[in-house]
Amino acid sequence: MNIQKILNQIEKQVSGLYGEGKIATYIPELANIDPNQFSMSICFLDGKEYSIGNFNKKFSIQSISKVYLLTLAIKILKDKVWTRVGKEPSGNAFNSLAQLENENGIPRNPFINAGALVTTDAVMEVAKDPYGEILDFVKSTCNNNSISYNLEVANSEFETSHRNTALAFYMKSFNNINSDPMELIDVYCHHCSIEMTTLDLARSFLFLANNGINPNDNSQIVTASEAKRINSIMLTCGLYDNVGDFAYRVGLPAKSGVGGGIVAVMPGKFSVSVWSPELNPQGNSVLGSKALELLTNETSFSIF
Amino acid sequence: MNIQKILNQIEKQVSGLYGEGKIATYIPELANIDPNQFSMSICFLDGKEYSIGNFNKKFSIQSISKVYLLTLAIKILKDKVWTRVGKEPSGNAFNSLAQLENENGIPRNPFINAGALVTTDAVMEVAKDPYGEILDFVKSTCNNNSISYNLEVANSEFETSHRNTALAFYMKSFNNINSDPMELIDVYCHHCSIEMTTLDLARSFLFLANNGINPNDNSQIVTASEAKRINSIMLTCGLYDNVGDFAYRVGLPAKSGVGGGIVAVMPGKFSVSVWSPELNPQGNSVLGSKALELLTNETSFSIF
Amino acid sequence: MNIQKILNQIEKQVSGLYGEGKIATYIPELANIDPNQFSMSICFLDGKEYSIGNFNKKFSIQSISKVYLLTLAIKILKDKVWTRVGKEPSGNAFNSLAQLENENGIPRNPFINAGALVTTDAVMEVAKDPYGEILDFVKSTCNNNSISYNLEVANSEFETSHRNTALAFYMKSFNNINSDPMELIDVYCHHCSIEMTTLDLARSFLFLANNGINPNDNSQIVTASEAKRINSIMLTCGLYDNVGDFAYRVGLPAKSGVGGGIVAVMPGKFSVSVWSPELNPQGNSVLGSKALELLTNETSFSIF
Amino acid sequence: MNIQKILNQIEKQVSGLYGEGKIATYIPELANIDPNQFSMSICFLDGKEYSIGNFNKKFSIQSISKVYLLTLAIKILKDKVWTRVGKEPSGNAFNSLAQLENENGIPRNPFINAGALVTTDAVMEVAKDPYGEILDFVKSTCNNNSISYNLEVANSEFETSHRNTALAFYMKSFNNINSDPMELIDVYCHHCSIEMTTLDLARSFLFLANNGINPNDNSQIVTASEAKRINSIMLTCGLYDNVGDFAYRVGLPAKSGVGGGIVAVMPGKFSVSVWSPELNPQGNSVLGSKALELLTNETSFSIF
Repeated sequence: MNIQKILNQIEKQVSGLYGEGKIATYIPELANIDPNQFSMSICFLDGKEYSIGNFNKKFSIQSISKVYLLTLAIKILKDKVWTRVGKEPSGNAFNSLAQLENENGIPRNPFINAGALVTTDAVMEVAKDPYGEILDFVKSTCNNNSISYNLEVANSEFETSHRNTALAFYMKSFNNINSDPMELIDVYCHHCSIEMTTLDLARSFLFLANNGINPNDNSQIVTASEAKRINSIMLTCGLYDNVGDFAYRVGLPAKSGVGGGIVAVMPGKFSVSVWSPELNPQGNSVLGSKALELLTNETSFSIF
Repeated sequence: MNIQKILNQIEKQVSGLYGEGKIATYIPELANIDPNQFSMSICFLDGKEYSIGNFNKKFSIQSISKVYLLTLAIKILKDKVWTRVGKEPSGNAFNSLAQLENENGIPRNPFINAGALVTTDAVMEVAKDPYGEILDFVKSTCNNNSISYNLEVANSEFETSHRNTALAFYMKSFNNINSDPMELIDVYCHHCSIEMTTLDLARSFLFLANNGINPNDNSQIVTASEAKRINSIMLTCGLYDNVGDFAYRVGLPAKSGVGGGIVAVMPGKFSVSVWSPELNPQGNSVLGSKALELLTNETSFSIF
Repeated sequence: MNIQKILNQIEKQVSGLYGEGKIATYIPELANIDPNQFSMSICFLDGKEYSIGNFNKKFSIQSISKVYLLTLAIKILKDKVWTRVGKEPSGNAFNSLAQLENENGIPRNPFINAGALVTTDAVMEVAKDPYGEILDFVKSTCNNNSISYNLEVANSEFETSHRNTALAFYMKSFNNINSDPMELIDVYCHHCSIEMTTLDLARSFLFLANNGINPNDNSQIVTASEAKRINSIMLTCGLYDNVGDFAYRVGLPAKSGVGGGIVAVMPGKFSVSVWSPELNPQGNSVLGSKALELLTNETSFSIF
Repeated sequence: MNIQKILNQIEKQVSGLYGEGKIATYIPELANIDPNQFSMSICFLDGKEYSIGNFNKKFSIQSISKVYLLTLAIKILKDKVWTRVGKEPSGNAFNSLAQLENENGIPRNPFINAGALVTTDAVMEVAKDPYGEILDFVKSTCNNNSISYNLEVANSEFETSHRNTALAFYMKSFNNINSDPMELIDVYCHHCSIEMTTLDLARSFLFLANNGINPNDNSQIVTASEAKRINSIMLTCGLYDNVGDFAYRVGLPAKSGVGGGIVAVMPGKFSVSVWSPELNPQGNSVLGSKALELLTNETSFSIF
């Protein structure tokens, strides 16, 4: 199978979709981006890597960082993490407060905002320098020491994070947040602001296709069983209120962000990342979703 | 790998769980069953079959029939089925009316009761004899002509189906049901009452592991793509409000019923069915769920 | 105070509002009505009566009948009626199923559809001929033997009553309906179809201003305390999701119907009825609401 | 009618209810109070005043302060206040976030916590010294210059106000809060901590029975129409999720607080206040509710 040729075809096919989505506008740093951009990178466990488009262009990973925080929380709390956050799809918007009210302050899963606030809080409880330790972890997964926070994005998001602050105070009222809510929001806004390329992201998620082992240095990031479980949660909860449709069309565990990035994993084979800033109404990249659908249709790569 | 030995071990291990669940009691026919029963059957695409326990004992498949009705609705309506029913996890109870209210009478997915009423309605619109045609389809998938409805169970469920009748009338108020609601409920209660063994069920679901092809006669039941998609919907919606946890523990697309049966599929490899009447609070078989978890832990069979 | 002059002024003032609302269209019998109609009648306890507009024109009382059914249910069940239906405002739409789900099949109050189905069910349990007995009761309150059901309206509503049927089956699943749901819906559609003039209605509700005593024959319909309590429920629950605003603007206990009628009570003084078919988005008569607001502003009649 | 004798009888009758409720325990200052206390005061427009029990004992007025803040907000914003807060009963708990989510950050009414945060925010926008101006207003209504905040209660509530802080940040995300949320919560906690006797409260609310005129100095606090409307909102929204039942039993506009106080108004006649710390499950004083029910039964004072 000629993967590079398939990527070339995909780039051509999705280019017809420019204009069908809208870029995120809630902070100026995201709103001012050129919408006509696309990149895609796929990394196989055997070391082969293929890319297309602006694959050296860094973008804001936003909610994709929730996977890193879940991974760190699992390293710290092991199975106990599930006493503080569920693992069921929410069936509601990603920043809903209503569900928290019905379920005593336990977020439905770690990939809605409330859930990622809980995993971030868990990391803050043990980390001396949460800002540094989170960033070091991300760097280690993709073996790229230049990964950094975008402080303008982080500060800008902090200014507009009233709803997330409400979520944090609300969960604190149920004793499910231990940190100071304002500090928590600051750490949260920082990890959302991390910038990476599609090649960084595809490399970074390979450990989830590799039984939890970082292929760069053969270190065991999480156990094989934990890796499978992170994949299962990406499949059932990774794309907001679009998970069923995405599993139906693409058939791979994946996580998306409002910066326009998506990263997906084919266990035992590869990981793949796409980026294009225009979003569909559910908040997922229009060109990115289509590119992954075309990839799995063309290659028959699918967990189903 | 010695599958029979693994099944023997599983049977021994789960036997310690008798008494931890409760059998369904809403109709006498289900309530009077001996709770201390267990069977498990696994059928590989290469033709090998393994079973343990009372695998010749027929039981009420209940909600597992929803997969047959979805398959038939897809055969009839193709992609148009998704204009009448969604494919997202519900995050709510299986017989919830609240979600229907917020979403204009379109059920969240075909595996909650409202969704299966819609797929049944779709079949009734084209079938001259829906009772006969549904049963013939089930027989053909497992090559067993003796499969039948349990009329006592069907009639008993009809008597206690006020909530499902409410769902049908409610969706009719949104023009999403075309049949007479009372006739629809009768057909629905019939297909829930179908009785099969774990060996029947494991054989029957092999087409979903086999790109849509019935291995008995090599007929194409649904396309390869449709089979993948039915699997994806089982994974994201097949176990009520327990899908995330089940995907996390077992890692296979599956469908359960309150009769105590569960059937799961490993695409490209096998299908497996378990039965034991005691249910956990989410309505899934206690011993059955554990048996599947042990199977995938022991064999590393998992889509993740 | 010259009441007739005030009514004359009100008629003039509200005539500018024609065209600001929409008539109910869900059944042809209501949809075909001439929207440019208005009538208003006020009856004092001292026997004086004043009317304006088409006050001899009969119209469909629709939900106003819920007050008659509550009165009959109180006569039958006394305080026990409150074990089957609440007396709190719903904060939701008048035909919501969601709230029933959260509150175990007990409707919030007797003036939402579900609640009126319960009071109707209570009457059916003891009445040999519920159709006849309900109508006789209404006739007796206004001393007008010509009051009748509109059978075309009743039958037409029965045909389009899928959502109410859903409510009835749903409550039956909680054992809060004893009748056959289809028969219940038929009785319900009948009492909604009763036709009266504003003068009939104003006379009919005088007993609620008169400590429960029918001024026509001095019979005690309900106790003084029960009359006060029916008034309190009209005030807190009588105008769907518009009760706070109506209490704020008009300040009288009242009940409205989608036929465009409203009837209100000033305890110890009078009852007043208005009719005009155009409805606001909450389902209350546009001209009728305004006319009552003008009346209470002009006369300072208000319970507050 | 011998009011003092009636009060004496009421005190005797309600004394049998000690032990049937629970005192509020969320802050130590409220939890440590002696539960066996009762007082009641009634002030007539003609100047007569009657009291019984510990009517010189100050208690924490808590949510009763919401009426003062609504009054001040109406003085500032007039009818525009209703663009920021509704006037419909909520049908939900007093600190619910779910309803805010469905209704774009506009609280249902000014007597749930979210609504009182909005009226407090409105006062803060124009007041140079909100702490001083709020307190001065309360003092002026009851002509008692010794009324003060309890700073220990205020600070203690601030420490446990995570849920209210969540509400404030959440409404700020909808641009319905202009102040800094933390400062807003501090002002809010202060006005909840105001301490008054039943005699203070009964005197203080007389302006609502008196067409908006303060009987102490004949100053017009609000217009007659505004006074009626505040009364209507007390009736439909003043007792949390208990308004229907309270209107049914007592039949007077009223506002309660978790400190165990209730104050009610009979327009044109009197205002009455009761206090006893034990609360029913809806958060209203057990002895206080009963005392008011006995008063209206005995005297036939009721707006219905």
